[in-house]
Amino acid sequence: MRLEFLAVSIQFQIEATNGPGRVGRLTTPHGEIETPVFMPVGTLASVKGVPQDVLEELGVQILLGNTYHLYLRPGVETVRRMGGLHGLMSWDRAILTDSGGFQVFSLNELRKVSEDGVTFRSHLDGSSHFFSPESAMAAQIGLGADIIMAFDECTEYPAERERVRASMEMTLRWAERSRKYFEGHRNEVPWGSSQLAAGSSQEMQIPRFARDDKAVEEGATQSLFGIVQGGMDRELRRESALRTVEMGFPGYAIGGLSVGEPRALTREIVESTLEYLPADKPRYLMGVGTPEEIAEYALLGVDMMDCVLPTRAARHGLLFTSQGKISIKQAQYAQDESPLDPNCGCRVCRRYSRAYLRHLYASNELLAQVLNTVHNLSYYLDTMRAVRHSIQLGERARFLAERSRPKP
Amino acid sequence: MRLEFLAVSIQFQIEATNGPGRVGRLTTPHGEIETPVFMPVGTLASVKGVPQDVLEELGVQILLGNTYHLYLRPGVETVRRMGGLHGLMSWDRAILTDSGGFQVFSLNELRKVSEDGVTFRSHLDGSSHFFSPESAMAAQIGLGADIIMAFDECTEYPAERERVRASMEMTLRWAERSRKYFEGHRNEVPWGSSQLAAGSSQEMQIPRFARDDKAVEEGATQSLFGIVQGGMDRELRRESALRTVEMGFPGYAIGGLSVGEPRALTREIVESTLEYLPADKPRYLMGVGTPEEIAEYALLGVDMMDCVLPTRAARHGLLFTSQGKISIKQAQYAQDESPLDPNCGCRVCRRYSRAYLRHLYASNELLAQVLNTVHNLSYYLDTMRAVRHSIQLGERARFLAERSRPKP
Repeated sequence: MRLEFLAVSIQFQIEATNGPGRVGRLTTPHGEIETPVFMPVGTLASVKGVPQDVLEELGVQILLGNTYHLYLRPGVETVRRMGGLHGLMSWDRAILTDSGGFQVFSLNELRKVSEDGVTFRSHLDGSSHFFSPESAMAAQIGLGADIIMAFDECTEYPAERERVRASMEMTLRWAERSRKYFEGHRNEVPWGSSQLAAGSSQEMQIPRFARDDKAVEEGATQSLFGIVQGGMDRELRRESALRTVEMGFPGYAIGGLSVGEPRALTREIVESTLEYLPADKPRYLMGVGTPEEIAEYALLGVDMMDCVLPTRAARHGLLFTSQGKISIKQAQYAQDESPLDPNCGCRVCRRYSRAYLRHLYASNELLAQVLNTVHNLSYYLDTMRAVRHSIQLGERARFLAERSRPKP
Repeated sequence: MRLEFLAVSIQFQIEATNGPGRVGRLTTPHGEIETPVFMPVGTLASVKGVPQDVLEELGVQILLGNTYHLYLRPGVETVRRMGGLHGLMSWDRAILTDSGGFQVFSLNELRKVSEDGVTFRSHLDGSSHFFSPESAMAAQIGLGADIIMAFDECTEYPAERERVRASMEMTLRWAERSRKYFEGHRNEVPWGSSQLAAGSSQEMQIPRFARDDKAVEEGATQSLFGIVQGGMDRELRRESALRTVEMGFPGYAIGGLSVGEPRALTREIVESTLEYLPADKPRYLMGVGTPEEIAEYALLGVDMMDCVLPTRAARHGLLFTSQGKISIKQAQYAQDESPLDPNCGCRVCRRYSRAYLRHLYASNELLAQVLNTVHNLSYYLDTMRAVRHSIQLGERARFLAERSRPKP
């Protein structure tokens, strides 16, 4: 019964597989996503420096927003009144928000965790706030992303086994509370026909952008994903995965990685955890990684990833290219008339020289950050396109091989 | 003889007049410019935060670069090797550079003026440099703008009459030295067929962008404009204008205004100086102004203007609209779903709400500066379009009125 209702809001279709890797299509109320997908991070309802039409041109199908940051600025109520993040940003494609758990975890000194939730201080003005599974859900419903995440505790690294187990158990209890709250309030999403009906009783405005939104089907609403924790312990990861899957979410994330552990360990935990996640649901690995890593994880069967690396590195002049990483500030590029990446077709590589990008960066010009970000995002999205293509080719090759095998 | 040669590089055609205002077409080696024109400032070979394709879409036909800043970063030799500013920036439309005189003038404590030229200290690292009329010309030839400016002294305000006269006389001597140096080195421009031939003797590279440049006609090169000074003294302005015109430049600028004098005085000096500038040559008023001012000066017969106001104000959240100036940081816009300017068709007003622009600005997001700049430039360019249109309509109305008059 519940699953039928969920099916209105999200659908996942696997179209090709090659080993554990798979190519799929994730249908959300705001459009389709080809998976495996890389989701650029738009922390404060903006991918820093990049206008939405350029994101569209790059082929971005889903963006990530950070609940913690958006809760502080501009505030959930403002976003809700603007029709959610889609209305505020004027972005008609899909959006995912994190639960705020990881961001609050990053505050270190400024937080206090209890069974109820987390008390934390704003990094902006030191004011005190509280996130519980319920209030984190309420915030994410107000923000109105297509996919929202259960409120979890990101276990620190390293940690004792007992500490990891206790943290994992609390995340499971919080997952149940998140689910329960979400089930009771999912009709409050600030877009779609449910809201158009519900909104009339309040003085809520439906902004023009949301009104124009023809993509949202009747009855469609948000989807809540569960998050697997369990630190670097394969056994606890297995248990966390099985018990989270038992609750029944339309998608599952692997959280609590990229917290300082060696990369080989990350990979080991990812690979072993994936075994316990259902094959017919999207799998989201949170907060990774380099271009090589995202390709590797995609081939292991991860469907969704996000990372600040391409955008943050760009703002520091670190550019990913088919010929390796380039630090554009270096003097060797000062008179280099070649494009940043001769194998890249992005609007930056098509038009500008390394010399120009180097000059902009060395002169601290705003345009450096804009152009560098566009290129790095393009490189990440191209990487994922190549991975999808290779999985599809692999399946076709296997299909052809099987067909040419002599019949018994 | 000299004038014939100049005609290859620049042509000015007046197409309509209405009172002193005129609509014209300025043809440069890098395309045509409809006048009166507003030239966005791209100090360091970039209009801060705006990619070149967006400038093209806005209809920018000519950009301004600052010789002083480009001389320091990335340096004239680097720009020259990249094919001049056009090659470095990958910008095929027209460019104008200032002479560096005004920028050096702004350094105040850091400069020393003599008959020879100006010794100044870099605002970046305090290193000592020297600009003479000859070296300022050499720099501007290396930068390769379509229109370059004679090296002048911008007289401070207020100043004694004798001081203004002495300064004006030196500017006249510097104009003659500028012209002489330019005539002897104009074939050294880093683009065009003259350079393609000349370049073979050196190890100079012609960058791919310059090579692709089909717009540059054979023999076309830069054009040097003279600058009228004379402080706030109408008589000295008249003398400066007449003696500068006597030297014979293909265009004339009015410099030394917007240096702290009251606006009414600016207007008075502009209007009285314009009388002494030849009607068949472009007239460039340097460093003004607000949207109202640029419209006003255009209707007085000014053909070209530049100002940092639209771009700098944008970065401070001050936006020009058909309904007046808006400070987007104000809380009243936090939930304002209307576009910034309902009468503006720019890509910012077509897509985003005031609430989003306010959020971006309040959150110190890079995109705020990008979008705000795009809108303000659009507003300035639209203002000039409207002025051109009104001059054309005025001429047509007069024409119709004359035709309908009964024949004698």
